[in-house]
Amino acid sequence: MSDLPRFVRIHEEGPREGFQIEPGPIATERKIQFVEALAESGLRQIDCVSFVNAQKVPAMADAEQVAKGIRKVPGVRYTGLWLNTKGLVRALETPLDIVGAIRVTASETFCIKNTGMNHEQTSAEQRKWLEIYRDKGVPVEWGYVMTAFGCNYEGHVPAAQVVSMVAGVLDLAAEADVALKGVYLADTVGWGTPQSMEHVIGAVRERWPDLALALHLHDTRGTGLANAYAALKLGVAQFDSACAGLGGCPFAGHKGAAGNICTEDMVYMCQEMGIETDVDLERLIDCARMAEEIVGHALPGKVMHAGSLKSHGPRR
Amino acid sequence: MSDLPRFVRIHEEGPREGFQIEPGPIATERKIQFVEALAESGLRQIDCVSFVNAQKVPAMADAEQVAKGIRKVPGVRYTGLWLNTKGLVRALETPLDIVGAIRVTASETFCIKNTGMNHEQTSAEQRKWLEIYRDKGVPVEWGYVMTAFGCNYEGHVPAAQVVSMVAGVLDLAAEADVALKGVYLADTVGWGTPQSMEHVIGAVRERWPDLALALHLHDTRGTGLANAYAALKLGVAQFDSACAGLGGCPFAGHKGAAGNICTEDMVYMCQEMGIETDVDLERLIDCARMAEEIVGHALPGKVMHAGSLKSHGPRR
Repeated sequence: MSDLPRFVRIHEEGPREGFQIEPGPIATERKIQFVEALAESGLRQIDCVSFVNAQKVPAMADAEQVAKGIRKVPGVRYTGLWLNTKGLVRALETPLDIVGAIRVTASETFCIKNTGMNHEQTSAEQRKWLEIYRDKGVPVEWGYVMTAFGCNYEGHVPAAQVVSMVAGVLDLAAEADVALKGVYLADTVGWGTPQSMEHVIGAVRERWPDLALALHLHDTRGTGLANAYAALKLGVAQFDSACAGLGGCPFAGHKGAAGNICTEDMVYMCQEMGIETDVDLERLIDCARMAEEIVGHALPGKVMHAGSLKSHGPRR
Repeated sequence: MSDLPRFVRIHEEGPREGFQIEPGPIATERKIQFVEALAESGLRQIDCVSFVNAQKVPAMADAEQVAKGIRKVPGVRYTGLWLNTKGLVRALETPLDIVGAIRVTASETFCIKNTGMNHEQTSAEQRKWLEIYRDKGVPVEWGYVMTAFGCNYEGHVPAAQVVSMVAGVLDLAAEADVALKGVYLADTVGWGTPQSMEHVIGAVRERWPDLALALHLHDTRGTGLANAYAALKLGVAQFDSACAGLGGCPFAGHKGAAGNICTEDMVYMCQEMGIETDVDLERLIDCARMAEEIVGHALPGKVMHAGSLKSHGPRR
């Protein structure tokens, strides 16, 4: 009866995307505590820190300490993000589960602001990463096309531009003899609508009908779960999200931007539509409340405030 | 290329649903000021107050004063809500644009908590209202089925129950020789998912293929705009919403519940998908910021915080 996927895989981004944008300092132990709580909820991949310039992103100055401090649970991958080779080298020196990625950005202006590199320099950088992945035996899983649905600097991003960026990612992978699991399309600054999801995903599918697609969505303008739903209807079965709706990108070019789509709201929506995620919603809600306590202010997640439907009698 | 409606009509509920649940007192003049600002944004119907028991809902004690104080703009309808005959009689004594409605609630328990009447008493009450509408020449436009997607007291509401309630509404209308514009399905306590929208709307459509349906949605658990999108895809073209995401029902049985779907986020989503609403998004964002100022705390709307895409270069 349903054309929705049966199972959706969720990668948690809260500790990394969330804490990097928080203005106040957060104690290293609290960050570790949050990651460890998330790992008990059934999430199978948690992005813990980013290895970026501590002068530009002071909240990530303790990335190594966080990485070292986490007591790992078997079956969970604890990942990190980097934007340049220096960051990758730092990441590889930690006990994190480093997963290789090829990262490009559809908007060249955003790319320069976020990473200091233009498209050509980014390709060269990715080749360096791919060499390091090979040398260090790092698995390479997904390509990423950031700002795939719009950019605060360049405006609308045409679907043809996204297709061209995906082609670039696949070329880089082929060159390095790497078989990607698929490609993430990232709505880095929250421009997407359900319609643009359909349009861009459709354009990529038309060229590569069998390429697995995943989404990294931000709820900047309230359409986050609507976008996710449109993608679910198209069979997309992997999403990044952030517990409690933590997050936002420090270089996105606007203040007051909302973070990633909220993990527990996404899990709730999936669960209520009969889609399995393997995540325990009640535990996740506890994590979201912990996140609010840690950052010291209200976070945008809805289910954490309203509660799940568990206590309200029969559901279906 | 699109199966979305070309035009969506939005009824603003913020002043009524929003202010009724606010804990702090709000000055009558501020309420009036908010309604007047909303009327300048292009919204064509604004629910201003509810005529309810001031002991149970103290925030609405000044309903008559608000109604009297509004300087009306031509072309805008300023409506009010009532839950019993006493409220209707009060409403009719104000200068508001009273629009008749037939209101039933799928969950009998919720109905009793919200109105003090069971299903049978509700039908009898509706007959009284219909007589008053006829006697006073009040236009009757929509039927309403509340808790159509779930209830915090009774749990899941089967689609068959909603169909039966719609049948009851249509029978009441036929008895009174009233031609309804259509029927609103209300997700009064925010249980809906995109899938349950499709399921319930589908069940009603199967029985009455030509009946116009409208939705009153709450964003209690984050799925509000996803639900709206699912309904838009089914051709639903009329929605209730609340500026800044104000609102929540005082008798919904849980605290921390989010309010209605947010008007400006809905207008933004529609606009970005090429659906006309006749509402000026920038003016609406100003209203949302005014609402935050009036209630004195942050409200959940997203676009009001992130801004529209207007300032960010070409959009398509």
